[in-house]
Amino acid sequence: MRFGVNHTPSVGWFHSWLDFSPSDTARDLEQIASLGADHVRIFPLWPVVQPNRTLIRQSALRDVATVVDIAGSFGLDVNVDALQGHLSSFDFVPSWLDSWHRRNMFTDPEVVASTAAYVEALAAAVADKPNLLGITIGNEVNQFAHAPHPAPHDITAEQGHAWAAAMVAAARRGLAGASGASGAAGASGASGASGLEARHGSAPLVTVAQYDAAWYDDAQPFGPEHAADHGDATVTHSWVFNGSAALHGALGPGSVRHGEYLLQLAAAWNRDPARPNWLQEVGAPTNVVDPDDAAAFTEQTIRHVLDTQQALGVTWWCSHDVSRSLADFPELEYDLGLFTNDGRLKPAGEAFAALARSAGHRAVTPAAPTSTALVLDDVLPDGSDRAGVRADCAPGGRFAAAWLDLAVQAPDGRGPQVVLRSRTSDTALLDARGITRCVEVPDDTPTAARLSVAHPATMA
Amino acid sequence: MRFGVNHTPSVGWFHSWLDFSPSDTARDLEQIASLGADHVRIFPLWPVVQPNRTLIRQSALRDVATVVDIAGSFGLDVNVDALQGHLSSFDFVPSWLDSWHRRNMFTDPEVVASTAAYVEALAAAVADKPNLLGITIGNEVNQFAHAPHPAPHDITAEQGHAWAAAMVAAARRGLAGASGASGAAGASGASGASGLEARHGSAPLVTVAQYDAAWYDDAQPFGPEHAADHGDATVTHSWVFNGSAALHGALGPGSVRHGEYLLQLAAAWNRDPARPNWLQEVGAPTNVVDPDDAAAFTEQTIRHVLDTQQALGVTWWCSHDVSRSLADFPELEYDLGLFTNDGRLKPAGEAFAALARSAGHRAVTPAAPTSTALVLDDVLPDGSDRAGVRADCAPGGRFAAAWLDLAVQAPDGRGPQVVLRSRTSDTALLDARGITRCVEVPDDTPTAARLSVAHPATMA
Repeated sequence: MRFGVNHTPSVGWFHSWLDFSPSDTARDLEQIASLGADHVRIFPLWPVVQPNRTLIRQSALRDVATVVDIAGSFGLDVNVDALQGHLSSFDFVPSWLDSWHRRNMFTDPEVVASTAAYVEALAAAVADKPNLLGITIGNEVNQFAHAPHPAPHDITAEQGHAWAAAMVAAARRGLAGASGASGAAGASGASGASGLEARHGSAPLVTVAQYDAAWYDDAQPFGPEHAADHGDATVTHSWVFNGSAALHGALGPGSVRHGEYLLQLAAAWNRDPARPNWLQEVGAPTNVVDPDDAAAFTEQTIRHVLDTQQALGVTWWCSHDVSRSLADFPELEYDLGLFTNDGRLKPAGEAFAALARSAGHRAVTPAAPTSTALVLDDVLPDGSDRAGVRADCAPGGRFAAAWLDLAVQAPDGRGPQVVLRSRTSDTALLDARGITRCVEVPDDTPTAARLSVAHPATMA
Repeated sequence: MRFGVNHTPSVGWFHSWLDFSPSDTARDLEQIASLGADHVRIFPLWPVVQPNRTLIRQSALRDVATVVDIAGSFGLDVNVDALQGHLSSFDFVPSWLDSWHRRNMFTDPEVVASTAAYVEALAAAVADKPNLLGITIGNEVNQFAHAPHPAPHDITAEQGHAWAAAMVAAARRGLAGASGASGAAGASGASGASGLEARHGSAPLVTVAQYDAAWYDDAQPFGPEHAADHGDATVTHSWVFNGSAALHGALGPGSVRHGEYLLQLAAAWNRDPARPNWLQEVGAPTNVVDPDDAAAFTEQTIRHVLDTQQALGVTWWCSHDVSRSLADFPELEYDLGLFTNDGRLKPAGEAFAALARSAGHRAVTPAAPTSTALVLDDVLPDGSDRAGVRADCAPGGRFAAAWLDLAVQAPDGRGPQVVLRSRTSDTALLDARGITRCVEVPDDTPTAARLSVAHPATMA
């Protein structure tokens, strides 16, 4: 079980890439390491690294590599995200893809090729670092693929698969090329490295990160299969401003178990039962979690994740509060840090540290899976795809409610696994997952009024 | 008469601000100075300097100041443009003004205040430089105010005036504050420094630059009055891909006199007859000017401008060809340099240099004005504004055709002045302008088919 933190630079936020300071970076990372974290996730800004479609700035790649080295000096592994893209309500899209030069970022052949060139170059720049945890294609790039984005690059699910495959392949090329060998990750195909080998010294992971519309919004072109079918682990981002906290209260089980629930959903869609699942983002947003409850929310959220089978780890959002000297962030974004902007540890940070120190370094024996699985109706009786599956899974949806009921009633406190209806007859899969009992969603499951999936950028 | 060049950095184009190199800059500027130019115009990128609405990067301001100093070491004055904004088909808009954070850039109070803060800070950063020619609010910012921009920030003409006034005031504050005195420019109000005093050692000019839709497109919110009523000089940008070359041929009088014509239009709208007019951009675009004709086009264009009354100067676009290693520029943008990308002087550069050396350093006696003025019907007989004035002035329009006829027939080869119908009875103004004869547009003036005002970004 990995414990990590998303690094939000305390000086200049991500604009600090424009004034890269190794000492500022070192101070932040030293503080993060002091929590007992074993890794950080870092976020170069796409237009800063690739300001022209055919110009990838070597100095920017060197800065990223330097951050990885500095992190290593504090014992931290690093996951590098490529396409930002989107961060905390701000979109960073290169001028060669915007305005007069707008083209579909997921399907235009020149754009895709050049985007892949960036992903490959970034991966190559850090491939040889012994503390490289992995490469994520980008932070929640699926935000750009559909409404409510104000100017979405609309695509089909198939086009989303082609794009994700191209980006994962580019990252693998970068990782393989720089090391001069094909490498385990490079040779392992779409499923990549399997199991829970992702730790210091093993092959870096390649991952695709999505915001939770992938799991909850049937109209979002990137869905569960995009999460489960590409790269080496299935990534989830848990934000309870999506309706969970409004429905269940900040400390209600539907909120503090939301991260756990997403990991179980992720596992249901994995084709390889050994594929790890990574809660890559989770935080305590003050618009729905009172700051006084942040520590309890953090502690309970992580505890529920700890015993989830095949959990690669949890990476908290985020390290440092955003400085109030920076304007226009949604209010909640200013207060998500485990540290204040000037480096004082907050109660949520204390809660995180206590868990990271006690649980982070224990033997990495995967948790035994729970033997009960709730069946998710992904197909109709005739085997055809069923519409509305994701709405059922969303906070307040019928499936989500049933899962939560089972989780709350479980004697051992662990939520059930999830199995797709289309796979219930795959006994090998069920065996591998340790599932001995499949449970149906009760007919009388109450459903809350459907809440629209909120987007954080719209929250002042 | 000032001779200058718009500096397009040979290494990395304007993305070079991300990797600022004094030596690369010095090489470019030394080459420009070798032409006999007396000034350059430079273009910081807005999102690089002000990546968050309340974060103005001091290091970026220092880089701009360093460029001004380097230019001074080669005897070059410098005009600094603030809001880029738009350059050669690429829009550079900060993330705090785009996508989820999109607000009207001309009217939103927070946006306008923060934009003004940037203009002020930039002006203050260079205010004390003895070789500062001036501050331009931004390069053709009016492109963002209306179609054909793909996502225009629509405004009224009045809102455009308020915005321009706020930006000019901000620049004056920056210039005045840094010098510790109110300064001539700071104290002179909207008209600012008058006459042809804008040269080394005089007060820096504040100017507002617009693309030619301001003169030719009646739907564009920024019009002639925005050019003539704000700042210290009236700026024109002459690009014959606007229909001039298509109608008249690249070396036809309607093309090589287009810069002269715009200066005469500008003078017509000035309320102060002593206000200088600046042909701040003019170039030989290869989509309509054959490279073999570029030198002749350059030579003839500049010669026609030389004897225009109240002409502050001409600033050629541009210094260096864009490297073919950079993608997605409209084809014409790669070949506009007086130098190749690797620093070889091109025939157009030789033509520019010959004129700059012979004419640039002569006594700055303003040319005597031509005594004939063509009347532009800006008002109806009842004194109300007349619709379609700008369409008449556009290439192929009735007024443009009549002006060109008079210019071609003039014994001294100088085009007529232009006087607004609404000002023909202002004898003091006519006296000050040296106008002794007002000529009407002949009833039988043939008009060409109206060409839409083309936008360079749409030209592959």
